[in-house]
Amino acid sequence: MTPFTTIAWDAEHRAVRMLDQTRLPNDLVYETYRDYRELASAITHLKVRGAPAIGVAAALGVVLGIQDSRARDYPAFTAELDEVIRVLGATRPTAVNLFWALNRMRAVAERSRTRSIPDIQTGLLNEALAILEEDRAVCRKIGEYGADLINDGQTVLTHCNAGALATAGAGTALAVIYQAHADGKGVRVFADETRPVLQGARLTAWELMQAGIDVTLICDNMAAQVMKEGKIDCIMVGADRIAANGDVANKIGTYGVAVLAQAHHIPFYVAAPFSTIDLSIPTGAGIPIEERNPVEVTNGFGKPTAPDGVKVYNPAFDVTPARLVSGIITERGIARTPYAESLASLAREEKRG
Amino acid sequence: MTPFTTIAWDAEHRAVRMLDQTRLPNDLVYETYRDYRELASAITHLKVRGAPAIGVAAALGVVLGIQDSRARDYPAFTAELDEVIRVLGATRPTAVNLFWALNRMRAVAERSRTRSIPDIQTGLLNEALAILEEDRAVCRKIGEYGADLINDGQTVLTHCNAGALATAGAGTALAVIYQAHADGKGVRVFADETRPVLQGARLTAWELMQAGIDVTLICDNMAAQVMKEGKIDCIMVGADRIAANGDVANKIGTYGVAVLAQAHHIPFYVAAPFSTIDLSIPTGAGIPIEERNPVEVTNGFGKPTAPDGVKVYNPAFDVTPARLVSGIITERGIARTPYAESLASLAREEKRG
Repeated sequence: MTPFTTIAWDAEHRAVRMLDQTRLPNDLVYETYRDYRELASAITHLKVRGAPAIGVAAALGVVLGIQDSRARDYPAFTAELDEVIRVLGATRPTAVNLFWALNRMRAVAERSRTRSIPDIQTGLLNEALAILEEDRAVCRKIGEYGADLINDGQTVLTHCNAGALATAGAGTALAVIYQAHADGKGVRVFADETRPVLQGARLTAWELMQAGIDVTLICDNMAAQVMKEGKIDCIMVGADRIAANGDVANKIGTYGVAVLAQAHHIPFYVAAPFSTIDLSIPTGAGIPIEERNPVEVTNGFGKPTAPDGVKVYNPAFDVTPARLVSGIITERGIARTPYAESLASLAREEKRG
Repeated sequence: MTPFTTIAWDAEHRAVRMLDQTRLPNDLVYETYRDYRELASAITHLKVRGAPAIGVAAALGVVLGIQDSRARDYPAFTAELDEVIRVLGATRPTAVNLFWALNRMRAVAERSRTRSIPDIQTGLLNEALAILEEDRAVCRKIGEYGADLINDGQTVLTHCNAGALATAGAGTALAVIYQAHADGKGVRVFADETRPVLQGARLTAWELMQAGIDVTLICDNMAAQVMKEGKIDCIMVGADRIAANGDVANKIGTYGVAVLAQAHHIPFYVAAPFSTIDLSIPTGAGIPIEERNPVEVTNGFGKPTAPDGVKVYNPAFDVTPARLVSGIITERGIARTPYAESLASLAREEKRG
């Protein structure tokens, strides 16, 4: 659906190929990674971002970390694997897909512990590629379920980037937009620019324009005004982690958009793969919130835009309470309130499946 | 109260001296204006901004425009004056203080129409200097009334810049902060950076730091989160125009802050000189909203931060309905709901006084 690839496995060079998202929208630059530490650094520095894409990157990072291992037995191999997983797991604390993907990789190694090291290495590569392919399929399903919520000619407001750039596929929130567009619904989008890192301006506006979708860029503080003017029919955002009760951690500013949506009687939807749902955390209070470097706020545009030495608060995420969420769109269907029940019910579907 | 002057009359050079606010916080640069057209351009380009400071600048601009007039009779003089007022009045459509100050200047000329041209010129200079001095006194009174609303150790969130940089005195919303600080209340401030032009980051954070007041800078989309965390005791903002029913036009994003404040049960105050109140406009629906150049959003930091050719919506102001306003702090006291009555009552005080 989109004319670019965010992350891919380069089988010939046994390397990870990724679009450097910090260079967008000015430069379309792909980088190739052979060293898992460099890939970890790329995750930390937001060259790849978006919970699902981080999960895929981490899984492929594990492959990079162990594909040249000289370990002769499982204990030596698993010690190397643990170190690789530790480094990759320390990159971003909030996105649960990171840990979910790393846990899947570790489980594959454990399941095949009696096999040869080359066999385990092949198993890990296959698992990482499966995670990537599953992500593409998940995006498609989310798009299909979510598009049913959008009527002809409607306008959607989105925050941050939950698009093709945030996944290996068509995105989560934006997969819904792409599907509605493909269905000929003439959907339009308002994109919050999403300070401090401007994922909305640099990434969401860019990828929607690439796809020929009508997008209007606004500053974050204009969202209330466009809602008041009756321009917005629904909100569609992604998620970095969802608690068992339906509380949603997502990019800073999402909670404010949800409060504003409720005040204007506009439905607020979250689109996310089931891997984003962390049933081990009862409520959003248990989700760790990453606080990032103040220079993102004070020097985010190549020159200082605030006084030297000013005190800054820069939380990268916030938690939207489930009561403000009209629905959570997953690849297994749409969960509705009460989420403790609807999410648990969707979780059981997998075990049956 | 503040160690800098925003705008002043340079009697020796018969010129206006203004701080170029577009250069803050990196450079402290004063510019001197002898040509009213250059001063008008400075208003348009936000070198001076803030409703009260715009009023003072416009009044002094009239002086620049007519002080070298060679008109020999009143009809010729008033034709020149009308052109000067027309140019200055076309700079910013939303700030009512601009029109209020220009109307005062025109009224002075009309009252003295039977006098000599030099006498009328002197009268206009005196009126402009009176507007400047009154603004300083008004800021002091607003600070005194408003400081009563702030208790020891409280934290105030503000949006945009309604400070000394927005007036000829100590500001409006920030005059309250300065007074509370002078009273030893240990007041702290969270400043929204206020995209697209970053008045909060560049101006509010700067002037509060100059005054030794504890200020923390946040992006606009973090305001909801700091409210949710219980960090904010009240909101204090300025205004560009207030309708007879108490609807408040102010910098874009103010309305969103007001909605968030109500959702978090936090009082939302507006501080403004009485000249900001436009009793000729029944409700906020009658206030024209300036839409500014998209490059403020897409290229606001010296390099493009959005794709080439992206569609942008850039309203410079929004209107906060009176129902979200806990009080309007003026130099005549604090108006409370119902504002149609309380504002009319404060207006009558002037006529009695």
